[in-house]
Amino acid sequence: MSGQAITETRILPVDRPFRFESGRTLERIDIAYETYGCLNERRDNAILIEHALSGDAHAAFYHEGDKKPGWWDCMIGPGKAFDTDRYFVICSNVIGGCKGTTGPASIDPATGSPYGLTFPTLTIRDMVEVQRILLKHLGIDRLKCIAGGSMGGMQTLQFFCDYPSQFESFICIASAMKHSAQQIAFNEVGRRAIMADPRWNNGNYYGDISPEGGLSVARMIGHITYISEKMMQEKFGRIRKDKDSKAIFKPSFEVEHYLDYQGVSFVKRFDANSYLYITDAIDNFDLMASISSKERFRGQGRDRGVNFSDLRTKKGLVISFSSDWLYPSSQSKEIVRLFSALNVQVSYTDITTEHGHDAFLTDYRRPSELIRGFLSSLG
Amino acid sequence: MSGQAITETRILPVDRPFRFESGRTLERIDIAYETYGCLNERRDNAILIEHALSGDAHAAFYHEGDKKPGWWDCMIGPGKAFDTDRYFVICSNVIGGCKGTTGPASIDPATGSPYGLTFPTLTIRDMVEVQRILLKHLGIDRLKCIAGGSMGGMQTLQFFCDYPSQFESFICIASAMKHSAQQIAFNEVGRRAIMADPRWNNGNYYGDISPEGGLSVARMIGHITYISEKMMQEKFGRIRKDKDSKAIFKPSFEVEHYLDYQGVSFVKRFDANSYLYITDAIDNFDLMASISSKERFRGQGRDRGVNFSDLRTKKGLVISFSSDWLYPSSQSKEIVRLFSALNVQVSYTDITTEHGHDAFLTDYRRPSELIRGFLSSLG
Repeated sequence: MSGQAITETRILPVDRPFRFESGRTLERIDIAYETYGCLNERRDNAILIEHALSGDAHAAFYHEGDKKPGWWDCMIGPGKAFDTDRYFVICSNVIGGCKGTTGPASIDPATGSPYGLTFPTLTIRDMVEVQRILLKHLGIDRLKCIAGGSMGGMQTLQFFCDYPSQFESFICIASAMKHSAQQIAFNEVGRRAIMADPRWNNGNYYGDISPEGGLSVARMIGHITYISEKMMQEKFGRIRKDKDSKAIFKPSFEVEHYLDYQGVSFVKRFDANSYLYITDAIDNFDLMASISSKERFRGQGRDRGVNFSDLRTKKGLVISFSSDWLYPSSQSKEIVRLFSALNVQVSYTDITTEHGHDAFLTDYRRPSELIRGFLSSLG
Repeated sequence: MSGQAITETRILPVDRPFRFESGRTLERIDIAYETYGCLNERRDNAILIEHALSGDAHAAFYHEGDKKPGWWDCMIGPGKAFDTDRYFVICSNVIGGCKGTTGPASIDPATGSPYGLTFPTLTIRDMVEVQRILLKHLGIDRLKCIAGGSMGGMQTLQFFCDYPSQFESFICIASAMKHSAQQIAFNEVGRRAIMADPRWNNGNYYGDISPEGGLSVARMIGHITYISEKMMQEKFGRIRKDKDSKAIFKPSFEVEHYLDYQGVSFVKRFDANSYLYITDAIDNFDLMASISSKERFRGQGRDRGVNFSDLRTKKGLVISFSSDWLYPSSQSKEIVRLFSALNVQVSYTDITTEHGHDAFLTDYRRPSELIRGFLSSLG
C-alpha cells in the first residue's frame, strides 16, 4: 500500500422519534458512522462492526492529519481479516456514546441544554435498534456478518438474535451473554468513582470542569482488568520510574505511571455520563432473558422474540483468550453451547495469549487467520 | 464459657523520639495494644499477632457493650488456635494507623494540628520497630511465635528476619514477600480515588468533611479483590435487590449493595490518610531487598542485616488459600522456598476454599487445626 487510507466520521441525522427499550423517546438523534470498502451491486457484502465500551465509529483507516488509525485498523483494511477489497465494512458509534451519536452530552432540543441524566436509560438493544436505522439508510437488508469484541460482542449477539434474517453469520470475541457478579462489581466501582466526584454534580457538569478525577479512576480500574496479571508483571514488575522522587503518594512504580497515563488520556476523549450509561447497559445485558422475552415493542409491532428456525442456516465464530480474566473463556463457551443448541454452526477457539482481555484489540494475528477463514467459508 | 471475655485497648505513651526508616523522627508516639491470656513466670509463652491493612489492636474478645468481637476472635481465645489458656497473645495497632497508635490523624505536638501529610513516609519495618518498643515495655525478650495474615504476614516476615533471636517461630498467612505489579496497581487505584476527591484537600481535611467518597471507592475496589470470583457469583450472581428501583445509577444488583455497604461502613471507621500511608508501605515492602541490605540504622547501632545462622533452629508455618487471587498461592510458595533455603523448618499448606483472600479472616477451621498443631510442635 502506498499512502494511508483516509476516512472521516459521517453523521446521519434522524429527524424522527427514536423510542428506547425503556419506553422513553427522543424526538431526533444523530448517528455517527464510518464505512470502509465498497458495497457491491448485489448489496450482499456488508459487514457490521460493533465497538466496545470506549470505542467509536472510527474503526479503521486514518482521519486526516492523525498519526494513529482507527481502533481496529489491524483487522479492517485491504487484505486484512475484514478485507475491504472484498467487504463493505460499517461501524457506528453507539447511542448513549460521546463520539458523534446522540448521548447524554448532546443538546436536548427541548431545553437547549445537554441531556445529562435526563437521557433515557440505555440497553444493548437500544444500540442495536439505532444501527438498524443506519443500515436501512445505507440500503442494506442483509449482512454477510456482524462482529465485535467485549461489549461489541454483546451487541453482536443481541442484533443476531433479534433479527436473524438480517445476518448470514456472527463473530463474537472475548464477550459474554451476561455479566457475572464480579464483572458488575468492577463496573459499579467505576460508576461510584465518577459519582463520588463532586464535579459530577448529578450529571450537570457540561460547560464546567468535568468529573475528571472520578472518570480517570474508573478507567484505571478498567485497565487493571484489561491485561493479564502475568503480562502486567512482565511489562512493569516492580520497576520504578522516579527512583529519587520524594513527592509523597505521587506515581513512582512504572505500573502507577502507566495507569495514571491511561486515566489522564481517557478523560480527554470520553464523557463521564456516557461511561455511566454504557456500563449500566452492559451490566443489565442478559441475552437469554432478552431473547426469551417475546414481548412486542408496544406500538411499533416489532417482534422481539427469536424465530429459532431462522438460526438453522447461520454460522457463528466465537473467540476467547486464555489469559482474559475479565471475560474468561468459560463465558465464551456458554455462548457456544447456546448457539450450538439453537442449531447455529458455531466454531470456537480459545487463543493462547498473555495479552488478557486487551488481546481483542492488540493480538490480531491468530484472530485474523480465524476470521479470514470463517468469512471465506460463508456462502 | 459463660459470659463474654471483655477487653479494652490500652495506650502506651512513648515520650522519647521515634526514628522512622526514612530518617524522619517524631518526638513522641502512642502505641495502642491489647493482650489476651497471661504471661507465664518464665515469660516465654508470648505470641505477637500482626494485623492487616484495615485491622487494629482489637484482635479478640469483646469491648464493653460491643456486639462484635475483635477481628481474629475466631482464632484467639481459650481453646482456640492461639489458645489464651496457654499463650499470652499481644496485638498492637500499626504506626501510621488510625486506631490509637500515632498516625497522620494524630496531633503534632509542635503545631497542635493533625500531622496529615507531614507524617513521615512509612515502611513495614517502621511498624515492626514500634512493636519492639511495646515488647520491651511488656518485658518480653523472646516470643514463642509471631503471626499474621496479608499485611500482617509482611510484618511477621520482616520482624522475624530483622530479629531472629527474638522469635522461636513464625506463621505467615495469605501474604507475599513483595507486591506484584497487579497488587501495586489495585492499591494505586485506591490511592488515586482518595486523592481525586477534592475533600481530601492534600491531606488537610481534619475537622472538615473527610474524603468519604474517595475512601469508599478505595474500599470497594479492595473488597472485589478480597473474595473469589466464584464465591461472589454464588453469593450474589445477578440477583437484584431493588427490582423496581427507577433511580438511575443507584445500586440495584445485590453485589452493588454489598460493595456500597462495605464502602459506607469503612469510611466511618478508617482515616483516608492512614489508607494512603499504609498501602504505600505495603507496595514498597520487599523482604529480599530489605534483608539483604546490611545497612545499619544510623546513630542507633541496630544491625539491620540477617544473621542467617540464627534462623537454623527456627520453625515457620506458611498458609495460602486456593481461591485467593489477590495473594495467590505462588507467592506463599516463594516464601516457603526462601525460608527453606535459609534452613528454617517450614511447613506449608494451600487450603482449598472458595473464600478467596478473606479466608484468612473467615475460613478459620483448617487454619486453626494447622496452627494448633504447629504451636504444639514447638519446644
